[in-house]
Amino acid sequence: MNLIELKSEISKRMPLKRYEHVIRVMETAEKLAVIHNIQVDHAVQAALFHDIAKFMDKDVLLSILTREIEDRRLLKFHHELWHGPVGAIIARDEFNVTNIDMLNAIRYHTTGRAGMSKLEKLIYVSDMIEPGRDFPHVKELREIAEESLEKAMEACIYQSVLFLVSKKVPVFPDSIDCYNEHLTSISEVGNTQV
Amino acid sequence: MNLIELKSEISKRMPLKRYEHVIRVMETAEKLAVIHNIQVDHAVQAALFHDIAKFMDKDVLLSILTREIEDRRLLKFHHELWHGPVGAIIARDEFNVTNIDMLNAIRYHTTGRAGMSKLEKLIYVSDMIEPGRDFPHVKELREIAEESLEKAMEACIYQSVLFLVSKKVPVFPDSIDCYNEHLTSISEVGNTQV
Repeated sequence: MNLIELKSEISKRMPLKRYEHVIRVMETAEKLAVIHNIQVDHAVQAALFHDIAKFMDKDVLLSILTREIEDRRLLKFHHELWHGPVGAIIARDEFNVTNIDMLNAIRYHTTGRAGMSKLEKLIYVSDMIEPGRDFPHVKELREIAEESLEKAMEACIYQSVLFLVSKKVPVFPDSIDCYNEHLTSISEVGNTQV
Repeated sequence: MNLIELKSEISKRMPLKRYEHVIRVMETAEKLAVIHNIQVDHAVQAALFHDIAKFMDKDVLLSILTREIEDRRLLKFHHELWHGPVGAIIARDEFNVTNIDMLNAIRYHTTGRAGMSKLEKLIYVSDMIEPGRDFPHVKELREIAEESLEKAMEACIYQSVLFLVSKKVPVFPDSIDCYNEHLTSISEVGNTQV
């Protein structure tokens, strides 16, 4: 399947507004892949696939997850977290994507995790800073992303976790692992008490 | 060992200022134990023991942890998190405390965890709200603690995690598990992206 066919297929699975977001993520990932020496076709494809399961029925997501995913913790969290892992399964099973790094970039684009590859970070960051996003510090994040993917990932996961906690929203353990890994960690105090 | 002897022994292991904190935690725990129908002598003793390892040498803490504790994740976090687990070991080995609930209250008083018992919550909350503590919302937490230990624990772990994340400090996974458990969780979105 060439890129034109793939885009057409992706566009059929989501509302136009979301598809436009996907295209912006793709363009952002493409630009940053060139800057940071990441294989561009992997970046473009992973970006195109990242939200492919976003508008699937919740019960279908659940049945795929239950059948396929070993991480049972996901089932205890909001179904918003399910479309990444299911998207990776769909990319593999319906589109014959075999590259594990691309599949992981799709799978972990919502939560992040410890030990992310460059491609995983690229998709996570691109999704968060694409030109349609508008939240405090996003302009700063875009500047950081052109300088250092590692620093951008650190800033993005920090912003994300802070946003969730400030809204009293549960935080998936992979995201805290990612946050912890990106902090200078061991020199700091991890006492939960103020 | 009676309470007077125990207090004397505890006081020898820490500076006066910290011992005064321990006594305030004990008094707070005693008062709340009566209100919330928790065995008072367990509350008093667990409170007295909770910081017993706080001023031990870091290398000694490490050697005890390495020998005794199955949770290797602790070693990757700041040693501030080690005095709870080591305190429980000392209470068990040097003071013959055999009650598992008391030992867990000592062990988890810094991080919290999912599935805490009433006694564990009592010690966690008392440590955070004793009259010597001064931080935003502490007065509110004290009021909540007299009404509901469960609600106080929820408010305390929320405050703690928010404090840590706002300071870019690593959060031990047990603390996020505790935070997640105390939120209404599944109805909320756990997407890390803003």
